[in-house]
Amino acid sequence: MRHFLLATAALCLALPAAAQDRAALATIIDQGTNHSQVVQTAQYLTDVIGPRLANSPGARAAEAWTQGKFREWGLRNVRKEGFAFGRGWAIERASVRMVTPRAVQLTAIPVAWTPGTNGTITAPVVVAPIARERDFAKYRGQLRGKIVMVTLPRAAKDPTDPDFRRLTGDDIAKLDQFQQPEYDPASINRRAKRLDYTKKLDAFLKAEGAVAMATMSYRDGKLVHGEGYLFGVGDTATLPAVQIAQEDYLRLARLAKMGPAPTLEFISDVRFDDGDVNAYNVIAEIPGTDPKAGYVMAGAHLDSWVAGDGAADNGAGSAEVMEAARILAASGVRPKRTIRFVLWGAEEEGLLGSLAYTKAHLARRGAPSEQPAGADYGFSDRWPIVPLPGHGELAAYFNIDNGSGKLRGLYAENNPAVVPIFREWLAPLASMGAANVVARQTGGTDHVLLQQVGIPGFQFVQDPLDYGSRVHHSSVDTFDHLKPEDLRQGSIVLAAVLLSAANADKALPRPPLPTQPVVTDPFAYSDANDD
Amino acid sequence: MRHFLLATAALCLALPAAAQDRAALATIIDQGTNHSQVVQTAQYLTDVIGPRLANSPGARAAEAWTQGKFREWGLRNVRKEGFAFGRGWAIERASVRMVTPRAVQLTAIPVAWTPGTNGTITAPVVVAPIARERDFAKYRGQLRGKIVMVTLPRAAKDPTDPDFRRLTGDDIAKLDQFQQPEYDPASINRRAKRLDYTKKLDAFLKAEGAVAMATMSYRDGKLVHGEGYLFGVGDTATLPAVQIAQEDYLRLARLAKMGPAPTLEFISDVRFDDGDVNAYNVIAEIPGTDPKAGYVMAGAHLDSWVAGDGAADNGAGSAEVMEAARILAASGVRPKRTIRFVLWGAEEEGLLGSLAYTKAHLARRGAPSEQPAGADYGFSDRWPIVPLPGHGELAAYFNIDNGSGKLRGLYAENNPAVVPIFREWLAPLASMGAANVVARQTGGTDHVLLQQVGIPGFQFVQDPLDYGSRVHHSSVDTFDHLKPEDLRQGSIVLAAVLLSAANADKALPRPPLPTQPVVTDPFAYSDANDD
Repeated sequence: MRHFLLATAALCLALPAAAQDRAALATIIDQGTNHSQVVQTAQYLTDVIGPRLANSPGARAAEAWTQGKFREWGLRNVRKEGFAFGRGWAIERASVRMVTPRAVQLTAIPVAWTPGTNGTITAPVVVAPIARERDFAKYRGQLRGKIVMVTLPRAAKDPTDPDFRRLTGDDIAKLDQFQQPEYDPASINRRAKRLDYTKKLDAFLKAEGAVAMATMSYRDGKLVHGEGYLFGVGDTATLPAVQIAQEDYLRLARLAKMGPAPTLEFISDVRFDDGDVNAYNVIAEIPGTDPKAGYVMAGAHLDSWVAGDGAADNGAGSAEVMEAARILAASGVRPKRTIRFVLWGAEEEGLLGSLAYTKAHLARRGAPSEQPAGADYGFSDRWPIVPLPGHGELAAYFNIDNGSGKLRGLYAENNPAVVPIFREWLAPLASMGAANVVARQTGGTDHVLLQQVGIPGFQFVQDPLDYGSRVHHSSVDTFDHLKPEDLRQGSIVLAAVLLSAANADKALPRPPLPTQPVVTDPFAYSDANDD
Repeated sequence: MRHFLLATAALCLALPAAAQDRAALATIIDQGTNHSQVVQTAQYLTDVIGPRLANSPGARAAEAWTQGKFREWGLRNVRKEGFAFGRGWAIERASVRMVTPRAVQLTAIPVAWTPGTNGTITAPVVVAPIARERDFAKYRGQLRGKIVMVTLPRAAKDPTDPDFRRLTGDDIAKLDQFQQPEYDPASINRRAKRLDYTKKLDAFLKAEGAVAMATMSYRDGKLVHGEGYLFGVGDTATLPAVQIAQEDYLRLARLAKMGPAPTLEFISDVRFDDGDVNAYNVIAEIPGTDPKAGYVMAGAHLDSWVAGDGAADNGAGSAEVMEAARILAASGVRPKRTIRFVLWGAEEEGLLGSLAYTKAHLARRGAPSEQPAGADYGFSDRWPIVPLPGHGELAAYFNIDNGSGKLRGLYAENNPAVVPIFREWLAPLASMGAANVVARQTGGTDHVLLQQVGIPGFQFVQDPLDYGSRVHHSSVDTFDHLKPEDLRQGSIVLAAVLLSAANADKALPRPPLPTQPVVTDPFAYSDANDD
C-alpha cells in the first residue's frame, strides 16, 4: 500500500496540472452532458437569429445576444472589439421566374451586397461566359437590356461519394503526415485580384447596358450560396446580381442556345444598412490566477453567409466555444492562464476578424510590396513580422470551423513538438473518439493569420458529416443538419483541452518567428492570368 | 468451302429470325449512334415542353409534338386514345416566405391540383401532425386562420450512400432471384383509401377554418415534389396546399414550438383547365408483315410531375421509346409482328393510361367487391379475368420507367421460361453492358396491369444513377441529370429487343391466365388502419 501511495504522490508531482485537470474532467462532462446548453445555443443562433452576414442585422443581433449569454454565464471582460469593415446587407424578398418560353419558378439567391432590383426586372438572358478581363471584348455590344449569365454552363460531377460520412481510423491515419511548407507568393494576392476583377466586370456589364448579372451555383441539386465580396462603402456593385441553381441555370443556357433566349422576371428586395460600418469580434474570459502566465484562446467565427442559417458554418463552432466557456465557468475552474473565448466577425470575407485581432494584439507586418484593392488581403506577404507586446502572452489558440461534426482530435499543424503534449491532454477523451493527434496543417480559417505570425494555433480534426458535400455556404446550412450529440461532445472536448492548455506547466512549444521563405521550387513561375 | 457454306446455311435455317435480326443490328446501331435523335427528343420534351402533368398544357403539347415526330419519322397508325381523367392544372407562380420572426424566402411547391391562393395569404402556421382520420379530434378548434403543417416534423436519414451509382456485377447478380408471389388484397385498396382520407382531411381543415395546408418534403437537401391526387372534376380540394422543403419546414416547426408561431406569406398562382377532361395514350406502329402474328409493344409514360421537367421520370423512357421507333423505321425493317409504341398518359396518378389500354384492348375483370372513391384503384382485385379478343394478339410488352440509366438487361419478371430466349436476344449487346437477364419481378409502373391480366410484360434492368436518391418526382428531375450516352444505348437496346421479339418464331411463353390467388399466410390479417 505504501509503495502504491508513494507512486501516486510521485505521479501527482510529475503531472500536477494534468492531475488537477483530470479531477475537473468529471465536472466538465457533467456540465456538458446533464446540463448542456449547446443545442439551445446553436438553435438560437441559427433558427431565431438566422444568417449572420458580417454587419447585417443578424450579425448585430448575434453580437448582442452572445455577449448577454457570456455575462449570464459568469464570463468576465465580456466585450466586442470593432474593426473597419463596410456595409450591412440583408435579403427581404427574392424571386426569379422564367416567364418565356414557359413559366418556371427558379431557385436563386441575390449575391451578397449587390443592389436590389427596385421592383421587377423583366429581361431576356444572354449566356456570356466571362471569366477574366480579356473575355470582355468578346461580348461587347451584345449585352444591352439583358440579364447576363456569366458562368460557363457546365454540369457538376456525378455524386458518386456519399454526402455524409464520419472519419474511419484509416481516414484519420492519412491525416498524420508532416508536410513541407509550400510558399506561393502569387497566391496571396489572388483574392484581391478577384475582387478587383469583380468590380471591373460589374462596370463592364453596366457600361454595356446590361440590367443584371446571373451566376451559376457551383453545387447541383438546387443548392444555392450567393457569396459576394463588394461590401466596402463605395464598393457596391452597380448591377443587381443573382446566383441561380445549377439545374435552372443550365436549363436557361440550353434554351438560350436553341433560341429565342428565355425571359426572366427578377425581383431582389435587399436592404443596406450603413449605420455602423465596423464589424466586431466578441470576446469573453475566464481570468487566470497567474497574471504573468498569459492566456490561451478558443475561437470560432460568428458570422455566416446568407443562403442558409449559418449552422455548420459556423453556428456550431460558435455554440461550442460558448458552451466550453459556460461549462468551464459553471465548473468553477481557476486556471493558471486566462482562457479567452472569441467569436470572430467577418471571417467569410477574408478572415477579417482574426486579421484585426492579429494587428491589434499580436504583430505588425512590414509595408505591402504592392497595393491592390483591399490591401489587407496581402497581409500575409509583408515582412518582417514585428511582434507586439501581446504576442508572447498568447500561449495557444484553438479554432473550430470545419463544420459541425464530432471532434476527433487535434491537428498538430506541422508542429510535431506538440504531438506528445496533445496526446497526453486527449488521452482521457479516447472513449469520446477525440484522442487522435495528427500532423497535418489546416487552412482557410481564423487560426491561419495567427499561425503566420508565429502563434501556436490549432484546429480540431472533425467528422465531415455533409459539410463539404452540401452544407458549406449553402442553402441547407440549417440547424437540422447539426447533430446534438456531436455539439455536446465537441463542447466537452474543447473545454477539456482549454483547461489543459491553461494549466500546463509550460506553454506549448512555439515555432520560430516566421521570416520570408526562400522559394526553392525551380519550376515556380508567376502566372499573370492565374486568377 | 462447301462444308462451310452448308454449315452456314444450316445455321440460317435453324435461326432464321435471329440471323435476320443480327443483320439488322448494325443498321440499328448506326442509326442509334451516328444518326441519333434521342438526346434532342429528350431535351425537347423536358427543356422546351417541360413538365407534363396529366392533362396539363404541357401534356397536351407533348401529345401533339410526339405524334408529329412519329409521323415525321414514318411511323404508321399514329393516334391518341383518350380515357376519362379529370382536370388540367399548371403552376404560373408560387412563393412562400416566412415574414415573422424574420424574413426567409422558403423553398416550396404547390401540391398538384390544389386551388390557388387568389392573391397572398398571410397567416401563422400551426404544427398539427395529422396522419389519419382519428387524429382530427386532437386539433379541433385550434386551426382557425392558420396554415396547418400536417406532416410530423422529422429529419431525413443521413445520406451515407452515394447519390449516384451504376450497377456492379454483384448488384445485378442479386436481382437474379425467383420470388414466390405475394398477394395482399388489403394493399390493393390502400391508394383509394388514401385518396378518400385526403379529401376528408381537406374538408376537416376547411371546416375548422384553416386557410391553407402545408406538408413537408420527404427528401432533404431542399428538394420538393408536390404530388397530389385530387384531379377529378368535382374532387378538387377546397384549401390551397403547399409542400415545403424539409429544411424550411423543420425550421418552421422548431420556431413554432419555441413560439410565437412564425407567419408565412403564401402565393400560389395556379391555373385549372377543364377544356378536355380526357387523358391520352399516344400510339404509333411499324406494321407487321404477318397480319395473324399479333404485335409486340414498347411503352413509357409521357406524363410527369411538375416540380422538375419530367426528365428521368419519364422523358428519358419516352425519348428512348420514340427513338427506338425512329431507329427501326429508318432501318427499314419489315418485322413479322407489328411493333407498337405507346406513350402512356396519367401513369403518375395510378397507371391510368395502361389501365385504360388494358380495359379497352386486353381484358375485362369482374365487378369490384367494394366501391371506394376512385373504384379503378381496385381493378387488380376483380375476378375473374375475361380476355378480350386483343388479348392473344399482344405477344410481349416492354416498359421503360426506372430512370434514365443505361439498360443493363431484362427482368424475366418471375417468368423463368423467357430467360434463355432473352439471353439469346441480348447476347450481341453484351459489349454495351445490356446482356444481363435476371429473374426478379418489378412493379410500380405500366407493365403491371398488363402482367396482371396474363400478358408477358417486362422491364429493363437499369443503372440507377441518382434516380432513387434525389431525382424521382423531385425538383431536380431535369435534363442535366440525363446521360446522353445512356439514352443512345437504351434506344439501341430497346430497338434490338423489339425486333427480336417481333421476328421470333414463337411468341414468348405466356403465364396461365391469373385466377384469384389463395392466401396461404396464416399470419395475414387485414388492418383497418393500415393506411
